[in-house]
Amino acid sequence: MALPVALKAFAGEIDAVLDGLMDSPYGREARLFEAMRHAVLLGGKRLRPFLVVVSADMFMVSRDCSLRVGAAVEMVHAYSLVHDDLPCMDNDDFRRGKLATHKKFDEATAVLAGDTLLTKAFEIIGAHETHKLAEVRSDLVQALALAAGGHGMTGGQMFDLEAEGHPLEMPEITRLQAMKTGALLEFCCEAGAILGQASRLQRAALHGYAHDLGLAFQITDDLLDVEGHAATVGKKVGKDAAAGKATFVSILGIERARQQAEMLADQAIAHLQDFGAAADRLREVARFVVERES
Amino acid sequence: MALPVALKAFAGEIDAVLDGLMDSPYGREARLFEAMRHAVLLGGKRLRPFLVVVSADMFMVSRDCSLRVGAAVEMVHAYSLVHDDLPCMDNDDFRRGKLATHKKFDEATAVLAGDTLLTKAFEIIGAHETHKLAEVRSDLVQALALAAGGHGMTGGQMFDLEAEGHPLEMPEITRLQAMKTGALLEFCCEAGAILGQASRLQRAALHGYAHDLGLAFQITDDLLDVEGHAATVGKKVGKDAAAGKATFVSILGIERARQQAEMLADQAIAHLQDFGAAADRLREVARFVVERES
Repeated sequence: MALPVALKAFAGEIDAVLDGLMDSPYGREARLFEAMRHAVLLGGKRLRPFLVVVSADMFMVSRDCSLRVGAAVEMVHAYSLVHDDLPCMDNDDFRRGKLATHKKFDEATAVLAGDTLLTKAFEIIGAHETHKLAEVRSDLVQALALAAGGHGMTGGQMFDLEAEGHPLEMPEITRLQAMKTGALLEFCCEAGAILGQASRLQRAALHGYAHDLGLAFQITDDLLDVEGHAATVGKKVGKDAAAGKATFVSILGIERARQQAEMLADQAIAHLQDFGAAADRLREVARFVVERES
Repeated sequence: MALPVALKAFAGEIDAVLDGLMDSPYGREARLFEAMRHAVLLGGKRLRPFLVVVSADMFMVSRDCSLRVGAAVEMVHAYSLVHDDLPCMDNDDFRRGKLATHKKFDEATAVLAGDTLLTKAFEIIGAHETHKLAEVRSDLVQALALAAGGHGMTGGQMFDLEAEGHPLEMPEITRLQAMKTGALLEFCCEAGAILGQASRLQRAALHGYAHDLGLAFQITDDLLDVEGHAATVGKKVGKDAAAGKATFVSILGIERARQQAEMLADQAIAHLQDFGAAADRLREVARFVVERES
């Protein structure tokens, strides 16, 4: 199956899993569960859970397990978007062409829905159904917490907020993006290795792949922000430039940024050489990430 | 050692552990770590970690382990206060007589500091140093996630926000408080049992104790809100009444509320009968919770 078709089919599969894992609205606090559903089921490429499942597939991990971890990662991703969109953060009213959670509901509900999605992700990963070995579950918890925390995703978001009005140089923006978006992508690929009890070397190779993939992904995002059309990207474009934020494109220019993204995709693929044909899907993902139009 | 003295000594002990676990401010995102430290090291009674450690002591759990879990719970508690104090939530500028995190820093930083404290709590619990058995770590992760999530703490906060302007009856406010503050207190006592690999019956007894303790704690908080002096309580008093929120005191009146708190403390203590003298400290805690003046 070609990757775009596979991704689309997968989106349906993971959405069904997410739907099954989300609590039904209940009691006076029902609004919380409605907001969580809105945030998670807004759609999106579902690239993160796809990476979890595809990485886990290489080690013959049962789909029941890898889909649960994929769902947990998507909840963490969704929570970060809900909080990033808040007026006190990036102040975005729309997300994926639909109302952001704080607009559809309200700010307090959005804060709580984000908090609860993050908490739920750990609940899911800690559950026996995710893997029969407690050692594996506990490794996943640690790795996710490190990726999503102050030295990863939230640290990157703080860095990003602090950078407003202070143009960054290339090494800084690379570090920022490796934290803000890279760390969670790295977790996705490592999660496959953890679930599959892969060797240290295999885990390191997947980590390296995901690291380069993450930067390639972000550079492409910056390119789309400049070149994309609002209708395709589903959010305001040219927003970073308007906010005076340094991006890979503002530093490198369009042409060099595109070359850099392609070089990183090649580099990501190079990490996979020991996996043979089992890693073909991940190779396709690396190509897709830099060639996508939204 | 008398309980108030023991609590004070313990506060010093857990503060040192928290201090050691918090990351040092680093990089352009240093503000995030500063805000986390501010939120966690603001002080407070440290009742939650005390409950973890005292419960774990009954099962001869090493203090190194129980203090880590206590620190993780305190981080979860601190995160919930940081988010609850936000302008879009309870809009409190002060906490424990000091500036709330969003006032000392800013709203975006407060949101991220709360997010990161929650994440860090799971990182700590998932770490090998917390317990050598992965099964225990993974049980702790699950129990904490359930207590802090939509059927526990954050669900209770949503319920509380939804209840504004809709006076609650006694069963509803009991449910609300059992979620909002009770669930995390229950986790504290259960954590001791999980760390000590206690029997199901022992775990259930500690759960029952903590459930009643939590309600007794909340009724006493409501009484202090009406009767206390701002200087002692360290936040605005009479705030709930001003917000038109139903409290145990507004429903039961001062006298019956006080009787109810005392009855719940007795009931909490009754759950401990099989533990003998080993549970004396927990019995003292139950008395202390309803007799405290701040």
